[in-house]
Amino acid sequence: MSYLSIDSPTLVLNESICRRNISRMVEKAKINQLKLIPHFKTHQSHIVGEWCKSFGIDEITVSSIKMAEYFSSQNWKNIHIAFPFNPLAVQRLNKLAQKQQLSIQLVNAEVTAFLADSLEHEVGFFIEIDAGYGRTGVEVSDFGLIEAIMRKAQSTNKLKFKGFYIHAGHTYHADRPGIKAIHEQTKAALHMLKDKYISEFHGLVTRSGDTPSCSIMDEFEGIDEIGPGNFIFYDLTQAKIGSCTKEDIAVALAVPVIDIRKDRHEILVHGGGVHLSKDVLTNPDGSSNFGEVVFFDQDGWKTPSTPSFIKSISQEHGIINASDSLLQKVKIGDVLGILPVHSCMTADCMGSYLSTKGEKIDHLEGQ
Amino acid sequence: MSYLSIDSPTLVLNESICRRNISRMVEKAKINQLKLIPHFKTHQSHIVGEWCKSFGIDEITVSSIKMAEYFSSQNWKNIHIAFPFNPLAVQRLNKLAQKQQLSIQLVNAEVTAFLADSLEHEVGFFIEIDAGYGRTGVEVSDFGLIEAIMRKAQSTNKLKFKGFYIHAGHTYHADRPGIKAIHEQTKAALHMLKDKYISEFHGLVTRSGDTPSCSIMDEFEGIDEIGPGNFIFYDLTQAKIGSCTKEDIAVALAVPVIDIRKDRHEILVHGGGVHLSKDVLTNPDGSSNFGEVVFFDQDGWKTPSTPSFIKSISQEHGIINASDSLLQKVKIGDVLGILPVHSCMTADCMGSYLSTKGEKIDHLEGQ
Repeated sequence: MSYLSIDSPTLVLNESICRRNISRMVEKAKINQLKLIPHFKTHQSHIVGEWCKSFGIDEITVSSIKMAEYFSSQNWKNIHIAFPFNPLAVQRLNKLAQKQQLSIQLVNAEVTAFLADSLEHEVGFFIEIDAGYGRTGVEVSDFGLIEAIMRKAQSTNKLKFKGFYIHAGHTYHADRPGIKAIHEQTKAALHMLKDKYISEFHGLVTRSGDTPSCSIMDEFEGIDEIGPGNFIFYDLTQAKIGSCTKEDIAVALAVPVIDIRKDRHEILVHGGGVHLSKDVLTNPDGSSNFGEVVFFDQDGWKTPSTPSFIKSISQEHGIINASDSLLQKVKIGDVLGILPVHSCMTADCMGSYLSTKGEKIDHLEGQ
Repeated sequence: MSYLSIDSPTLVLNESICRRNISRMVEKAKINQLKLIPHFKTHQSHIVGEWCKSFGIDEITVSSIKMAEYFSSQNWKNIHIAFPFNPLAVQRLNKLAQKQQLSIQLVNAEVTAFLADSLEHEVGFFIEIDAGYGRTGVEVSDFGLIEAIMRKAQSTNKLKFKGFYIHAGHTYHADRPGIKAIHEQTKAALHMLKDKYISEFHGLVTRSGDTPSCSIMDEFEGIDEIGPGNFIFYDLTQAKIGSCTKEDIAVALAVPVIDIRKDRHEILVHGGGVHLSKDVLTNPDGSSNFGEVVFFDQDGWKTPSTPSFIKSISQEHGIINASDSLLQKVKIGDVLGILPVHSCMTADCMGSYLSTKGEKIDHLEGQ
């Protein structure tokens, strides 16, 4: 791996780890007879999209119309926009739907009625069901609203009901028994809804999406499709809750070492909130952890046996709480790797990647 | 103000508020016989840079070599890179210093020695002094290290000592008496250092930079130059600690209203951590505040008398805890404004602005 060109914070993407993560999830989907429709908000990259294609993935999930536009050049069979549809984006939706098969999510009758009047091309839709933590979606027992959306949609031939979608994002803050409990709830909700409506909508499918459930659970009865995103890179949050090991994390932020304070066991690096984001974990001793140190080598990086971590960050500064062994070997002008707490946010902050072979990898720019 | 074109999260910049903020700080600097060398990491914009120029500002502060490169096309008398110098960036520094007068910050003898050997053009430098919260800089009483840096620099004619720099970033987490106490400490430290070294370095100046002290304090004895950044936009954090009022905040994130849950007093907007960043304040009742709602009008926006705020965010979702009056008037498809908790981070996330006249305003892209 050539670091000759790194003189500033750079997000390094390890293709072999990333491909292994994709491969595992593809295998898991196959074993469980699930269709894998990965969420591309994590990587937002055409090149990573091509890696997914090489494993037979033909449909994808995104979180905004802009991201759908970005990936529409890649000939996906369908792009699903997994966000309650924003009616202000209808013109862009109409334009994109001319050339790209799309599906969206609906959570209320107002937007459904508006789309019934405004759509120019057929678009599929899922009804998003509240996973139980109140972020978004129709409550699972609110059949009145579910059916109001279905009936409004039936007033046009442009809205095609595809099924029910649940994103159990609260698994990101749960432990293993908690994830299992949430997963059981998701399965039960989707199972019930499918049973209730399958006679009217023969092709309806159920989809859920969170990386922890898809990584940890082995039983998906009631679920037809999965749309996880974070698994492509994983991160320290996922390692902490058991979705992966640290060796499965596919991105590391390369940060220049600026100053070393041996007396305080501290290393100042150029790498802060604008690079990593400010997502943070709490260490067992109560201290904050904004990312963990790895050492770059020819093929990628190695995780040291004694961890060192970023204990505080500001806009561009990161302060590493350094182990003795790190302090012994580190020099000003070195480049350290930092495993991110939340890889989706870090990738979005950085806006591009460098492969371990030194090649630039794209990421959708701006918001 | 035309919102016809807004269909997705957009950072709106109010030029008249921004110019008023610049004007006030210019006046304050003049009254206190300080040179104002504003930090451009907050806005990162050529256009805002031009507004600064129109008030007579001729030197600027940035936080990275990349930002210095971005602003070097604007004919500034000097660009100061207010970050302990990253030796890996020396080639870029040499290249930029061919055409642009620059200054940097040094905190150790190693990088000073390295630069003494490597610089091709004269560059000014400040010795950064630890403001007392241990982020960066030489401890104020570590004369051994201060003089080691001075002596190494004297081994070349390429490093010109300009003075001492303190960034008291801990004022961002202080109350008014706390800010005053920190400011007194900053003044005393800079005063002492100037007294000690002025006989050897006749032109030496002292500089401090935090927006809270520059906004709130009225007495700057011992300080020659100030380099605040955030004051150009301000934000809810600054309003909370008393640096400004909410009416002084010059940016608001425009977010589409996606869903409304009257029963829960909640509004779902498209606007999350990738737009606002995850910086957060705590309301008096202990709840989290990721941004506060304003209403756009022809000339900018109005702050409602009863506040509504974003109580939780994920990557792209924001959930507003809505007041009764907001709930009464809001409709799906409306665009609300959100005053940011930390404007520097929000601007960096968004990567560009829209003026209240509907014109695009630049922001340095990527990291």
